[in-house]
This record gives sequence, C-alpha cells and structure tokens, in this order.
Amino acid sequence: MRTHQETLTVRTHGRGTWDVTGEVARVVAASGVATGLCHVFCRHTSASLMLCENADPDVRRDLEAFMARLVPDGDPLFRHTLEGPDDMPAHVRTVLTSSGLAIPVTDGRPALGTWQGIYLWEHRTAPHARTLVVTVQGEPA
Amino acid sequence: MRTHQETLTVRTHGRGTWDVTGEVARVVAASGVATGLCHVFCRHTSASLMLCENADPDVRRDLEAFMARLVPDGDPLFRHTLEGPDDMPAHVRTVLTSSGLAIPVTDGRPALGTWQGIYLWEHRTAPHARTLVVTVQGEPA
Amino acid sequence: MRTHQETLTVRTHGRGTWDVTGEVARVVAASGVATGLCHVFCRHTSASLMLCENADPDVRRDLEAFMARLVPDGDPLFRHTLEGPDDMPAHVRTVLTSSGLAIPVTDGRPALGTWQGIYLWEHRTAPHARTLVVTVQGEPA
Repeated sequence: MRTHQETLTVRTHGRGTWDVTGEVARVVAASGVATGLCHVFCRHTSASLMLCENADPDVRRDLEAFMARLVPDGDPLFRHTLEGPDDMPAHVRTVLTSSGLAIPVTDGRPALGTWQGIYLWEHRTAPHARTLVVTVQGEPA
Repeated sequence: MRTHQETLTVRTHGRGTWDVTGEVARVVAASGVATGLCHVFCRHTSASLMLCENADPDVRRDLEAFMARLVPDGDPLFRHTLEGPDDMPAHVRTVLTSSGLAIPVTDGRPALGTWQGIYLWEHRTAPHARTLVVTVQGEPA
Repeated sequence: MRTHQETLTVRTHGRGTWDVTGEVARVVAASGVATGLCHVFCRHTSASLMLCENADPDVRRDLEAFMARLVPDGDPLFRHTLEGPDDMPAHVRTVLTSSGLAIPVTDGRPALGTWQGIYLWEHRTAPHARTLVVTVQGEPA
C-alpha cells in the first residue's frame, strides 16, 4: 500500500461552483494507486465540497437558490457580521455540506457514478484562492 | 496493511431507508482487516447514506417528515423539473446528507455505537437499483 | 504504511461545542504517521462533529441559533418524543452535520486551514460522555 498527497489551488470568482473532477482524477492517476480511496479536503470554513449531478447546470443553480433561501445573507439572527453579510451564511453552508469527500479508487480511477461530479462550492461573494489537499491511499496495480 | 473493495447493490422500493449495516459488516469480515477504516460510497446523486438511531422506526419516519418539509417536492423555486417533482429535492437531500461514510474497524468489526445503523436513503419516489462501493483498509489480525 | 487507533472520551455539559483539535493532533503525533489521513468518528446519533471557524466564538453561537431555528425542540412534526423534546432534533442535527471527519496529515500534523478547528457538537440539553474513535493511516517519516 502507498500514500500519495498533492495540494491544488482553485481560484474562485465569488459565490458558485467549480468542477474539480478532472484535476482529482489526474492526482489519482499520478498516485499509481489502482484500488483504494481518494480523499479531497477543503482547508477553509467558508467554501466546501459536494458531489453533484454533472449534466444539467440548472441543478447547481437550484442548489444555490435553495441555500440562498435557507441561509439568507444578512440574516438578523447572526451576530458574526464584521466580515460582511455573506460571511456567517458561508460558515453555515459549509457545515451543512462538507469539507471533505472520500471517493473509492477502482482500476486507477475515481469510481464515481455516471452523473457524479466533484465541485468546490465557494460560499463567499468575493473571489478567493482555495486550497484543496488530495490524499490517495491504496494498492498499486 | 491491505485494501479490500466490494460492490453492493440495493434495490429500493421508492423513497425510504434501507438498513445496510449487516451487509457492510459482512464485507468488513471478508476483508480480514482487524484495525482500520471501512468506507461506504453511494454512486448516485439522488440517494445518500446516513448513520441513524436503529431502535425506534419513528426516528427514520421523523427524518423523512423533516426533509419533506425542508425540501418540498414540486417547489416552484426549482428549474430542474424535467425528471419529475421529486428529482431536484432528491439532489438537495443528497447534498444535505452524505454520499460517503467512513466507519472505524476495531477487532474486525465496524466500531459503531450501540444505536448506530447504516442506512441507504432513497430520495426518489420510484424504485431504483443503487450501487454502493465498500472499501476496507487496515491491518490484518 | 501503518494504522494507529485511539479512543477519546469527551464529557459534555449539555448542548454546545467542544474543541477537540488539540487532542486529535496529539493522537496524530503519537501515530508516527507523517503523510496520510486522520479520521475522527463520533459513536452517537445525537452528537456530531464539525470543522468550524476557530477565532470568533460568535460563529459557533450563530450556528447554534441557526440550528435551533431550523430544527426547533418540541416540533409537533415529530413522533419520536419519548426521550424528550430535544432528542429527535438532536438526531436531525446529527444527520445534517457529520458523524465522521477525515483530515489530511502532512509533516506529522493535521493539515487544517488556519481558521479550522475540530469541534464535537453536543445536541442534547443534558450532559453526556461521548466517545470518539480516532484512526490515523499513512506513511511514517
């Protein structure tokens, strides 16, 4: 068994989703692992990761609309407002989704379903550079 | 250390939960791993996994009722409606819960708490065949 | 590669968050793993784990307020009420957050972002002893 680890940087343009499936698959290929697990970790508390339907962009638009209604910017419930009306909602959205995802590796590739894509979800309205740590562990071919 | 991986198929009868604890424990036993981790992954974007109280079925009924209220079928907020009024809610429910779960393995068994069961949560109203990938990594006895 | 596993007990004083970052880092150091993954698992269905902003305590106060509004105690929607008005909400909060977290290990330490802390979130109003299982897997230095 072996461990392979790489760091990726994603530059976001504000709130929205970024497809990182291809970059994660590239790290899995570079690892030489044939059977195992690939873990993706987002080192932030106002951006997160999700597995989402990758065919119709309306699915991600609808998820954004759902979150905007569930956790509205500028909600008077929140006291942590110094960093802007979108900051505390970004923390809540991160906790409701996920900072880390593990995906099985089979035959040297992420064993995603046909419709599953890996997305970084930026929850702040301003652009950010987000760091992902990808760790692949398993048996070589 | 070793890696063991198996694929399971769960045939659902529409929206609801299916207990897969026994099948996951069987894969852990077959792996020969005594100490490590067992990861269960659901290769779909409209069904998910959860760890839930396994004693009173009302707990899962109440979780279903909560989700039905939080993410109602046919919500006019959604644009992705071609696959039916339950499809976009199924994607949202999947993102709010989890596509993957890792459980420690101790003494050759999943180290679940007394009241923890592993459930596949089907979020579509029609029956589906759902694929789970179980990956066990760790030290043999 | 190696696997190291330890059990931690956290005594909570009722609903609220407990910072376990230091204890998890101690287990990672004890494991001798330089590069890999550290997994923390909560063996309960009414307490969970989260990664959260560690600088301003108002962030955790606001998360608590958000959850109290989203999943109110004593909600008439719920049938599972025998264990008290906070029990079923505790199960829902656990499913909406996470029973397990994996964090990359780099240079022998959890590779958390600057603002990320690991918190046990007690969802019951009474004090409890909560068991966490920490599993570290990876390559030694």
